[in-house]
Amino acid sequence: MTKRVPCVRDWDTSALRDLPVGRRYLIGVSGGRDSVALLHWLQGHGYRKLIVCHLDHGLRGRAAQADARFVERLATEMEFPFVLASEDVKARARRSKYSLETAARVARYEFFARVARRRRCGTIFLGHHADDLAETFLFNLLRGSGSEGLHSLRAGSTLAVNNFSLSVVRPLLRVWRREIDDYVVAHRLRFREDATNQSPEPTRNRIRHRIIPMIEKEFGREVRMSLWRAAEIAAEESAILEELVPADLSAARNLPVAVQRRAVRRWLRENAVADVGFDLIEKVRALLDPANGVAKVNLPGDRHARRRAGRFFIEELPHAKVAKERKGKKPL
Amino acid sequence: MTKRVPCVRDWDTSALRDLPVGRRYLIGVSGGRDSVALLHWLQGHGYRKLIVCHLDHGLRGRAAQADARFVERLATEMEFPFVLASEDVKARARRSKYSLETAARVARYEFFARVARRRRCGTIFLGHHADDLAETFLFNLLRGSGSEGLHSLRAGSTLAVNNFSLSVVRPLLRVWRREIDDYVVAHRLRFREDATNQSPEPTRNRIRHRIIPMIEKEFGREVRMSLWRAAEIAAEESAILEELVPADLSAARNLPVAVQRRAVRRWLRENAVADVGFDLIEKVRALLDPANGVAKVNLPGDRHARRRAGRFFIEELPHAKVAKERKGKKPL
Repeated sequence: MTKRVPCVRDWDTSALRDLPVGRRYLIGVSGGRDSVALLHWLQGHGYRKLIVCHLDHGLRGRAAQADARFVERLATEMEFPFVLASEDVKARARRSKYSLETAARVARYEFFARVARRRRCGTIFLGHHADDLAETFLFNLLRGSGSEGLHSLRAGSTLAVNNFSLSVVRPLLRVWRREIDDYVVAHRLRFREDATNQSPEPTRNRIRHRIIPMIEKEFGREVRMSLWRAAEIAAEESAILEELVPADLSAARNLPVAVQRRAVRRWLRENAVADVGFDLIEKVRALLDPANGVAKVNLPGDRHARRRAGRFFIEELPHAKVAKERKGKKPL
Repeated sequence: MTKRVPCVRDWDTSALRDLPVGRRYLIGVSGGRDSVALLHWLQGHGYRKLIVCHLDHGLRGRAAQADARFVERLATEMEFPFVLASEDVKARARRSKYSLETAARVARYEFFARVARRRRCGTIFLGHHADDLAETFLFNLLRGSGSEGLHSLRAGSTLAVNNFSLSVVRPLLRVWRREIDDYVVAHRLRFREDATNQSPEPTRNRIRHRIIPMIEKEFGREVRMSLWRAAEIAAEESAILEELVPADLSAARNLPVAVQRRAVRRWLRENAVADVGFDLIEKVRALLDPANGVAKVNLPGDRHARRRAGRFFIEELPHAKVAKERKGKKPL
């Protein structure tokens, strides 16, 4: 398995262009097909200093421990260091009032950022592929994120996690699940079947296994490519629009509505508010208007946004503050 | 029916703000629920100089003649002038190689533009509502129009039809089909049931009657509002991005990809190319690169786009030219 096996037709390597193989990178490996294929593929392209990171979300009991042992063995065989952490994501979701999926994502990124800081290595590879992009686009669309929320998966992006700047690279965003299937067969890769469909959000699994296949049946053609393209276009357009967003939220007051929405979204993200939907953005955006009598908007995670003397603040409710100090955790 | 009946809760009139009631406007009336409700609502808001326009698409035989007679009677009762035209949309679709739906739309807008020119009245009211917006957004998304194609229905827009600038107003884009149902019941309006679901495109009907209800059942919540919001956001962002598009296509060469895509789309539209999808845009966009050996791209309607000496042209194939001269028709 650690031998380099040449691929019949290699995948697009453009995402690796600025990432020299001799440098050190983290890689998130759940043990499922996608991350195992990514790990193998990167090794095949000469990446020799990968640090394999695995988070046990505390959601799958013994199966999760088996996943962790599997990834550890895999890393050892491939002679990569292995970093494991565990977290009770259910408790975090309860505490923060985030959905299980959001809480899991926040926990993962905090874990990655901790490892990145400790190992002095700011870049992580993740195994999201083209179907993930299409499915995430549709998921965000259906739950009403609006087009600023439609480009969440990008080939290269930078996340601020607890004041640490983590660079996320997703080299497989142009590779379809089917191609990954072929890859793991061709290379006889072992992986954990359960870890592949590990999303704790049943709606997301339903999008993959039921909604998209049903749409394709009714619509009479493949729609994954259309969704993928729309996500790709949204990402390109988004990059242009983001440049129009002012650094200071209060400066957005006289800008077009679309830019105000993005300014609010960015401000909430920078202040570690996850699960930012259209309704929340519109409520916070209404604060921009000084004529608006309302000067406070509730946020998830027991916090609120406030306008005072034309400036904007995020405040935590007292009991939430106490709980967080005790745990030493902050939501992403 | 011609009596003014006050509504329990009136619809949003913001789209009428710059349209004085004393002026003359066209209104497209199929005879279906939506356009009949719009006609009645506008009359109720004091619009007294409406010109009722109805196109028989030649698709529904005797039922279509009954639709036309129904709309004529309605206009007469309401003391509005009535303009009728017929066209063989099937033949137009064959001739132009457009889909039946596109051919029908092109025929309608050409008809509206002819009436507008003759009556010296550049503005037409159309009865598209919030469900139409959500459905069109999803339809365009699934067929792969990309986000520039996702905002086709706007409350106010200007169309160039055969060198005539037609202003299209859709005052009901914030009104849901259910509210229109309530309205026609409350006001005891008669309408032609068949004309309501008259889309000649079966896929579109499937989106309305099967795909959206199925998604809502699987997703466990209403998604029409999410789709509507996404369409609304896309329209706002689109307006900003359109301002970045240069007047001359050749000037787009060094601009970001997203702006190039919009420049190509606009150029094709201005040159009366309908059915502009992502693939076509990408092919024409490739012409922008002078290093690209290909200097010609086929277009629907027997035409092609060509780059010559750094400039861009649309050419018609000889036999298409002859056919069009004979018919005196040009596609939108």
